[in-house]
Amino acid sequence: MESSNLFLKACRREPVPRTPVWFMRQAGRYMKEYRELRAKHTLLEMCRTPELAATVTLQPVEKLGVDAAIIFADLLLPAEAMGMKLEFVEGEGPVLSPTIQGAQSVRGLREVTDGELGYVGDAIRVVCRELQGKVPVIGFAGAPFTLSSYMIEGGASRDFAKTKTLMYRDPGLWQELMEKLVGVLTRYLASQVAAGAAALQIFDSWVGCLGPEDYRRYVLPHSQRLIANLAPLGVPVIHFGTGTATLLQLMREAGGDVIGLDWRVELAEGWSRVGHDVAVQGNLDPVVLLGPRENIPERVERIMCAAQGRPGHIFNLGHGILQHTPVENVQAVVEAVRNFRLDKSEPRSR
Amino acid sequence: MESSNLFLKACRREPVPRTPVWFMRQAGRYMKEYRELRAKHTLLEMCRTPELAATVTLQPVEKLGVDAAIIFADLLLPAEAMGMKLEFVEGEGPVLSPTIQGAQSVRGLREVTDGELGYVGDAIRVVCRELQGKVPVIGFAGAPFTLSSYMIEGGASRDFAKTKTLMYRDPGLWQELMEKLVGVLTRYLASQVAAGAAALQIFDSWVGCLGPEDYRRYVLPHSQRLIANLAPLGVPVIHFGTGTATLLQLMREAGGDVIGLDWRVELAEGWSRVGHDVAVQGNLDPVVLLGPRENIPERVERIMCAAQGRPGHIFNLGHGILQHTPVENVQAVVEAVRNFRLDKSEPRSR
Repeated sequence: MESSNLFLKACRREPVPRTPVWFMRQAGRYMKEYRELRAKHTLLEMCRTPELAATVTLQPVEKLGVDAAIIFADLLLPAEAMGMKLEFVEGEGPVLSPTIQGAQSVRGLREVTDGELGYVGDAIRVVCRELQGKVPVIGFAGAPFTLSSYMIEGGASRDFAKTKTLMYRDPGLWQELMEKLVGVLTRYLASQVAAGAAALQIFDSWVGCLGPEDYRRYVLPHSQRLIANLAPLGVPVIHFGTGTATLLQLMREAGGDVIGLDWRVELAEGWSRVGHDVAVQGNLDPVVLLGPRENIPERVERIMCAAQGRPGHIFNLGHGILQHTPVENVQAVVEAVRNFRLDKSEPRSR
Repeated sequence: MESSNLFLKACRREPVPRTPVWFMRQAGRYMKEYRELRAKHTLLEMCRTPELAATVTLQPVEKLGVDAAIIFADLLLPAEAMGMKLEFVEGEGPVLSPTIQGAQSVRGLREVTDGELGYVGDAIRVVCRELQGKVPVIGFAGAPFTLSSYMIEGGASRDFAKTKTLMYRDPGLWQELMEKLVGVLTRYLASQVAAGAAALQIFDSWVGCLGPEDYRRYVLPHSQRLIANLAPLGVPVIHFGTGTATLLQLMREAGGDVIGLDWRVELAEGWSRVGHDVAVQGNLDPVVLLGPRENIPERVERIMCAAQGRPGHIFNLGHGILQHTPVENVQAVVEAVRNFRLDKSEPRSR
């Protein structure tokens, strides 16, 4: 069976001969080929130049033998297209300015015309042409909550105090911001599918800072509408977050064909919480790949055993590949996933 | 009933006429009286001068009417006593150096003699004398994992990559470090009880970065031994962490009379996971106190209702009070807890 089918079939919980595997941030600084290109271009240049974005998107497909490519792009590109200034500060990560604070700044956010983020679609077209169906291409965007958190905090945050304070103080304005983002993200994701993306991932990476009650009230309706808007596109949607152990049922309610599980929840428990009638993706701790290579097979096998060969498991880390990860350790994960057979999964005598 | 008894009785799950309330970081920068004193002294001066530490410990008891005082001290004082250099860098938080990296640095950590952290006990003695039993004093220390994470990372961390990598790479060295910390922390906490602390809180604030399997293997045995070491002291132990929804049963297994619940888990669900035969503490999101004051009663009542009047609930936030919190909002929480009656807890018509 061609690899292309593995990933998409697993998204739809169809039986597959082996579990597909890909990695969040599989195109990134941990890889020498990426760093060589990155040394010559800024991150934004790489995102905005379809040939460069396509090149780094393809690197891990070649080097790792993963079962899907994910388009190289930055989560914050839509915020920039809406009129915010996006910079990458060495050691600090992304900085968006001026931050969203009140009604004026929310209303000042521009709608995004089809052409404005067109370079992402163009990059997807190049990737699809190069791949010739070898593996599918995943398009992606930040979820409304996580994208808004960057727009309100101005960058990464520990406690998301400004984001939550805005939602508590002015639920009407919060709703307005969410609706605006849902509109922009719907069109952005649709353009990625039009360009050839065969699946979409919604990154609600930081939503785990919320309790269930707040998620239900301030986030669920908006993520739900975004995902519902994507249904007519006919591609599977992966709904991902971290620190979401207590939000999993609600995320499932919001939608998605595949729910992402980070490493804080055991795969078997997480899957039973979201229900076996959706697929799951995960869930190895990315830091395991900074540890000894010889530990990797056992850690992979534990997750594979927890999935019990049930159709609908996509192997991935619980979050993106960390910068200092040896590429050989990523390859060791792929190898362990490929070599795994449920029938030989008695306790290892290594 | 004097307030003193409320908190300790709740720790022991004895019936109380009203739910006790106190706050993590109730002595801190959100309070004008604290800032006035802090303007004249460094944080370490305040920790090391029993009269100053006692003064700020007592401020919230007076100002908020809480049911317990927690001794003002820094979580990293034991690391400093073990020979590390501790500094507070403006805007960055605590910095410990040189960081723990290998066997040499672990073995270079000094044992701590009884006198070395004696200023904390001295401050507790001053506080007890001033309070005259009005409310009990809580002593505290970081848990072995959380304390070690600062020693290995050198400060706050997002992914705890160095800490986890050390445990994966060299489990023997990790064990050695944990055992050393358990020894130091046992004596440190015992000295606080000897000075008059009537309860102890173990802060495993960052342990939620681990999955259950890693917690069980690398953390549980050490937290368990620390808590077992404290049993002969005869005071209740509060075992606290954040992001621990999937670790709660294991934390309970490690020990503690009271298990801390952060805001990410509904109180009713968290309590049922740890079991109703232990007390729980929590669990309002600290960011709620940055929002509108009029929202506070409803948020407090939701938690109080979830506790169902079951003996053994101590009201607290899910983590420490944030710096920019208006003191009136903290007072509003205390008032809402004090005013709550389960029998009048029908849906609010406000």
